[in-house]
Amino acid sequence: MTVSDLGEFGLIARVTADLEPAPNAVVGPGDDAAVIATSDHRVVASTDMLVENRHFRRDWSTAEDVGHKAAARAFSDIAAMGALPSALLVSFAAPGTLELGWVDGLMSGLRAECAGVEAGIVGGDVTASDTIVLGLTALGDLDGGNPVTLDGARPGDIVAVCGRLGWAAAGFAVLGRGFRSPVQVVTAHRRPEPPYFEGRRAAAVGATAMTDVSDGLVADLGHIAAASEVRIDLRADALDVPAKLREVGGALNVDPLVWVLTGGDDYALVATFPRRVELPDTWRPIGLVAEGEGVRVDGRRWPVGGHEHFR
Amino acid sequence: MTVSDLGEFGLIARVTADLEPAPNAVVGPGDDAAVIATSDHRVVASTDMLVENRHFRRDWSTAEDVGHKAAARAFSDIAAMGALPSALLVSFAAPGTLELGWVDGLMSGLRAECAGVEAGIVGGDVTASDTIVLGLTALGDLDGGNPVTLDGARPGDIVAVCGRLGWAAAGFAVLGRGFRSPVQVVTAHRRPEPPYFEGRRAAAVGATAMTDVSDGLVADLGHIAAASEVRIDLRADALDVPAKLREVGGALNVDPLVWVLTGGDDYALVATFPRRVELPDTWRPIGLVAEGEGVRVDGRRWPVGGHEHFR
Repeated sequence: MTVSDLGEFGLIARVTADLEPAPNAVVGPGDDAAVIATSDHRVVASTDMLVENRHFRRDWSTAEDVGHKAAARAFSDIAAMGALPSALLVSFAAPGTLELGWVDGLMSGLRAECAGVEAGIVGGDVTASDTIVLGLTALGDLDGGNPVTLDGARPGDIVAVCGRLGWAAAGFAVLGRGFRSPVQVVTAHRRPEPPYFEGRRAAAVGATAMTDVSDGLVADLGHIAAASEVRIDLRADALDVPAKLREVGGALNVDPLVWVLTGGDDYALVATFPRRVELPDTWRPIGLVAEGEGVRVDGRRWPVGGHEHFR
Repeated sequence: MTVSDLGEFGLIARVTADLEPAPNAVVGPGDDAAVIATSDHRVVASTDMLVENRHFRRDWSTAEDVGHKAAARAFSDIAAMGALPSALLVSFAAPGTLELGWVDGLMSGLRAECAGVEAGIVGGDVTASDTIVLGLTALGDLDGGNPVTLDGARPGDIVAVCGRLGWAAAGFAVLGRGFRSPVQVVTAHRRPEPPYFEGRRAAAVGATAMTDVSDGLVADLGHIAAASEVRIDLRADALDVPAKLREVGGALNVDPLVWVLTGGDDYALVATFPRRVELPDTWRPIGLVAEGEGVRVDGRRWPVGGHEHFR
């Protein structure tokens, strides 16, 4: 059974049938637009587009994995503002020949990731295309707090990270060489587990700037350095390369510190804090903010790396 | 000069360079997510995906046209809830070989359509794909009013429409036969002019149900009939086929009433109102709500028509 067997309206009925009621929705999916309650007079919004074979591969990830990861990527941007995810809108373009089972799996992954943050799928669109394309828009709620932007880092601030670094990159490297294990790194690539609630926590204790690590630690801290007009100095010995990454790096002949510094897709959060702040114990200090520009590791410029589409 | 000459980050810099400040944005584009002010504790949200050669053709429409129409389509859903558009998020996937001039034109059309409703472009995403795909998410503000949903029509209500019907369909028919005139209908197809502010007005006078005509009058009223569990009776003589559509219909040997009843893409608004309501003079009564189901024209079932993707 394929998407075109069901047709557009049948497909819409199918993907909306299993949706849990959206806790924050005044008007849920199925109308011209959704209406979402906000706890203050603001809403946080971010959008992403994912294209098959560029952002995901159907032979490397199940449909559930793709759903989990797409929602994680969208919600991670909300967390990076110091907000909590409140709702998700999902656009989906696919060839008519696509198996319905894949769509069911995708929706299952999206729903499960939404359930973890009590956000509902409140709207969407389906259409035909030659390649699978997903458009995800996440909405979020600041609950009275201040948004944490890229431009607030000040010289003297502490740089700290929460969540994993380099695991998804190690998994990607393993899959790229035709392996399917170690399962820990492959799973990290397939289903990242962003620390959603830690963004709010960092905001509450006074984070001055924050972002999520989607392009790589150095690349994403580069955005904070540029927007805040500061330099960021990282200490390699604080980055704590886990034994598992050393093991995989040894097997593939790759320095695992490269994965930690340049790998995206784990969706860790990285933020700057005034020195007086007592960091939550889930956050690890990894460097300091200084006068200047760019990002240095142990005093040296590190090539930014990160993924460049269109190249 | 093409998209890949500039690269991902150059392209982002280029498309964000000319953005006017977003009037409702607390945090505008360029951060992990945008923060948009709402005038009450709610936000309206709708998302659409448009695929080249399915939703638009580059030989039929300029890039500016595509931008105008994509934003119009997104904002029309907001108006259909009785809200005003407040912000737009734009995702864009394209081949690296795409000329930058086309992207500039697209952005120019999107910006101009946004300016007409004082909404800002507050965020987006760019990525590579074989085909041009646009993902548009519109946000809107109810300004303290009640959302007008699909399910509130009651037997005895008046059905009324605001905006044009059949013009874009006539333009599409003309273009499909290789003509480029009459300019009025071709322009209607390329750049619809939805009556954005009339949605709010209809809500204010007490509309019981409302939607925008994107699939065709009969198809879209069918959604109201189904959600409200009522029948909708239209009077063909109230539908007022304009002389220009008669002229084009005559030339193409098409009954222009078919365009009026089944053509989408003009983004008219259609709503139901209690009989006691004095309709604003911009709204034309075209029928009545009755007990029963479905949509009838002069007492007969009309085949729904409308566009079905995946077929």
